[in-house]
Amino acid sequence: MSLNEFDIIQQYFSSLTQSRKDVMAGIGDDCALLVPENGKILAVSTDTLVAGRHFLSDVDPASLGHKCLAVNLSDLAAMGAQPCWVSLALTLPEVNEVWLEKFSQGFAELANRHKLQLIGGDTTSGPLSITLTIHGQVEKASVLKRDGAQDGDLVCVTGTPGQAAQALKNINNGSFVDEQARKALDWPEPRVATGIALQGLATACIDISDGLMADLGHICSASNLKAVVEKSAVPGCGNDDALLDSVLTGGDDYELCFTVPEKHKDRLAQIAEQTGVSISVIGRMSEGQGVEIIDDAGQIIDMTDKHGYMHFS
Amino acid sequence: MSLNEFDIIQQYFSSLTQSRKDVMAGIGDDCALLVPENGKILAVSTDTLVAGRHFLSDVDPASLGHKCLAVNLSDLAAMGAQPCWVSLALTLPEVNEVWLEKFSQGFAELANRHKLQLIGGDTTSGPLSITLTIHGQVEKASVLKRDGAQDGDLVCVTGTPGQAAQALKNINNGSFVDEQARKALDWPEPRVATGIALQGLATACIDISDGLMADLGHICSASNLKAVVEKSAVPGCGNDDALLDSVLTGGDDYELCFTVPEKHKDRLAQIAEQTGVSISVIGRMSEGQGVEIIDDAGQIIDMTDKHGYMHFS
Repeated sequence: MSLNEFDIIQQYFSSLTQSRKDVMAGIGDDCALLVPENGKILAVSTDTLVAGRHFLSDVDPASLGHKCLAVNLSDLAAMGAQPCWVSLALTLPEVNEVWLEKFSQGFAELANRHKLQLIGGDTTSGPLSITLTIHGQVEKASVLKRDGAQDGDLVCVTGTPGQAAQALKNINNGSFVDEQARKALDWPEPRVATGIALQGLATACIDISDGLMADLGHICSASNLKAVVEKSAVPGCGNDDALLDSVLTGGDDYELCFTVPEKHKDRLAQIAEQTGVSISVIGRMSEGQGVEIIDDAGQIIDMTDKHGYMHFS
Repeated sequence: MSLNEFDIIQQYFSSLTQSRKDVMAGIGDDCALLVPENGKILAVSTDTLVAGRHFLSDVDPASLGHKCLAVNLSDLAAMGAQPCWVSLALTLPEVNEVWLEKFSQGFAELANRHKLQLIGGDTTSGPLSITLTIHGQVEKASVLKRDGAQDGDLVCVTGTPGQAAQALKNINNGSFVDEQARKALDWPEPRVATGIALQGLATACIDISDGLMADLGHICSASNLKAVVEKSAVPGCGNDDALLDSVLTGGDDYELCFTVPEKHKDRLAQIAEQTGVSISVIGRMSEGQGVEIIDDAGQIIDMTDKHGYMHFS
């Protein structure tokens, strides 16, 4: 049986194409027509996942549907933006109805939880890859950028980074992968509620999809400051150097790293309570450049050649 | 030499990343931050081009850069929207600097002509494909949809459709391809100025990328009317049946098909003059369903099995 691209949208994604009042026209014309809220800023992000590069071709299609959207939602979370609309460009080697059914379920479950509407896209034939462009909205004064960190701000991170990287290492080694690590790899949960709760509190924010070191490094360079991180304060690090490596440089984490003035420290526990996502203070911003990791004695740990994940590097 | 994704954007696309005042943050944070104009509607479209499917891998990269953007601009043109912002997801099998140089030149030349800013994207490693998401803005009252055609409206088309399809047929047959047809295939010119000029005049509009028959058929079904098209009025048709087939069903055209009340007929010549793009009246809307092609004697030409291009069909 063959399906054309209209049928694919109709059959598998129709539950996602009609929900929001700010969509004047969704799928079905040359463009979607959207009604932005007056005075708000539009936050837009695009991510591509390619089979064999970002995921294995035999990955559970439900987790793939979830994860490709989670990766994009995480970018909105990092700006403190409210998710609104998403377009999905799906390139498929064949029309596999079982695959499409599962993929769309994984995608829809997460989209519906965030009241996100599918407003367009393209379905093409070719090697499996997925490109999403996601749109969120945020008040101009509340947007979380990378360049606002101040000298003395606390450096914080949500959840337990490094689990996805550790799961991938163990899979590649043929080692045991525990359920929590597997979930972090295949079903990451974007920190949308935390990002929104941090509006007006955080001075800078980023998601750590390229690894904590690399992404905190982006906050440092954009804010023209140094971050000093205490190894023992980083959740999940322990004394295992392999774990330390995964946590600091692993990538494929969808946690947030942010900076916040010390006066707001008490609010962090409340936000963690409200959102059900832990927040750890792992260090402090100061004058200087780059990211320093220090041990309990205050000695700098040599992290030479530890960089985040980069394509084509 | 290897380049990471930041270098690729910096080196090849930097001329496109800073120009518009309504971009609060472009490439370089988790999301682009855009400032929509108060009261305007956002028009958004996504298209993917896959090597081996939509273009040959050895195509001139400059024409590919132009064409992938032209395809998206054509969708904005069909809504009467003013181009604003675009994101580019580029999946490349390798970093080929000559290829990137030419691709980005073709892309930039067209983008700059339309004051379009590159606001984000993703650069990944994998089989060559390109996904663009383009954003335009339009007044709510002026947007050109598919569903507004009225009984008695004139049916019009810009330019000379069918040339791209004819060029492709000739290339596949090893026949001669004239320069104009080659240009229609490789360097299509999106009808942005015509679309904007049609605001308040056209009652329905579509781009005919899937072929005139199929796309005019979408106006008919959305407007719940029939279109009667006079074969002799369709530009480029002549008496050659192979040409007729290319013009009516060929696809890969980026002309506009639109409907307009007869009282505005005189304005069409002015718009054609202003924009430098010809406009032909090819028929009329009436009660009924579907698209009828009639000959000079008013007899219906049998177009059974003539449908536009569909993926996976």
